[in-house]
Amino acid sequence: MKKAVVLLSGGLDSATTAAIAKSEGFDLYAVSFDYGQRHSRELESAKAIAQSLGAVDHLVISFDMTKIGGSALTDNIDVPVDRNLAEIGQGIPVTYVPARNTIFLAFAVSYAETIGAEDIFIGISEVDYSGYPDCRREFVDAFEKAANLGTKAGTEGGIRFRIHTPLVKLSKAQTIKKGLELGVDFSLTWSCYLGGQKPCGKCDSCKLRLAGFAQIGMKDPLEYAD
Amino acid sequence: MKKAVVLLSGGLDSATTAAIAKSEGFDLYAVSFDYGQRHSRELESAKAIAQSLGAVDHLVISFDMTKIGGSALTDNIDVPVDRNLAEIGQGIPVTYVPARNTIFLAFAVSYAETIGAEDIFIGISEVDYSGYPDCRREFVDAFEKAANLGTKAGTEGGIRFRIHTPLVKLSKAQTIKKGLELGVDFSLTWSCYLGGQKPCGKCDSCKLRLAGFAQIGMKDPLEYAD
Repeated sequence: MKKAVVLLSGGLDSATTAAIAKSEGFDLYAVSFDYGQRHSRELESAKAIAQSLGAVDHLVISFDMTKIGGSALTDNIDVPVDRNLAEIGQGIPVTYVPARNTIFLAFAVSYAETIGAEDIFIGISEVDYSGYPDCRREFVDAFEKAANLGTKAGTEGGIRFRIHTPLVKLSKAQTIKKGLELGVDFSLTWSCYLGGQKPCGKCDSCKLRLAGFAQIGMKDPLEYAD
Repeated sequence: MKKAVVLLSGGLDSATTAAIAKSEGFDLYAVSFDYGQRHSRELESAKAIAQSLGAVDHLVISFDMTKIGGSALTDNIDVPVDRNLAEIGQGIPVTYVPARNTIFLAFAVSYAETIGAEDIFIGISEVDYSGYPDCRREFVDAFEKAANLGTKAGTEGGIRFRIHTPLVKLSKAQTIKKGLELGVDFSLTWSCYLGGQKPCGKCDSCKLRLAGFAQIGMKDPLEYAD
């Protein structure tokens, strides 16, 4: 079995991405980040998803991005709520975390190199997303090149790291459909930016998720706050 | 004054690099990493260097790379000693830490974006070094491109991140000379891979440092273990 490192945030995109990697015959090595985000609810989800998909290992790397700040997820800035889908699609919102996916992918490459994996999966999408620049394939292509130049495995080890982005051209609805086909249990996932008992249903992430389920006429298995 | 983020390991290369950035008129924002390396002696040096150069801020980011391992600096692998300079120049040694500079630079970009800095300084060199692939300009060029594509500042903010590598073509002796010209106090720096009371004088890092001082006929201000 080939090994794949899969970035697992606990959301539905990364859960579907992990299921895709598994369906392609990879052994899953999940990695999640406890980076000072507003809540750790999503890490519990990541753990449950890793377990449900039979991941060989699940690494959680901790660091404190609140020391850097600059985002509604890591600083004293309010998370926007009640925006409609048209608003969400415009510009880069305050929930953008400076260089977050660059940091996440850097750790993923380090992990992949150490365990001898060539394949890294990340569940980014350029459709129905929040405009984050580090969710674009163009960025991933450039990062992949840097990763191969900056590692022992990529230079003298004869390995070529490949960063897979199977959702990059899928809408949220298409991702959900794909996940359901692969048997992903979306009741285990968590997308809400806030860390309540139930997802808020009002932040951009909840809005995109709910719209995705609505579009395919399915009910989100999560129960939302009133 | 323009702001520069400077990666400060506590060694003589990064101290000289910080002094160069200062001499070019930048306000210094230093960043160091407590990543699970064998000792924290170098972080004390980084702190002293930042202070001596009048850094505006000194950020220390902590994460545990021993969870990933794969290096003599982060895993249960012996640091090589008593190798001669010819041996040191051959291949990538076990002190290589998988994707370390990729991770460090990713945090530096995040920090730069948040404080509105366009300039990042890193004291890598392709001469008299340990063969680490992430110390080559070719890698930095690729990473710089990724950083600009993967950030808000680099895409819609009208900023272009520049990663400066002023030592990349300098030998260790030339770096030391440059540092002395700029008044760097090398007694504050620490290069040894081990964390004793005094530097060992036997690991690759000590060997390269000692050879550099010898080449310009200077005495290293640090006192070495017998």
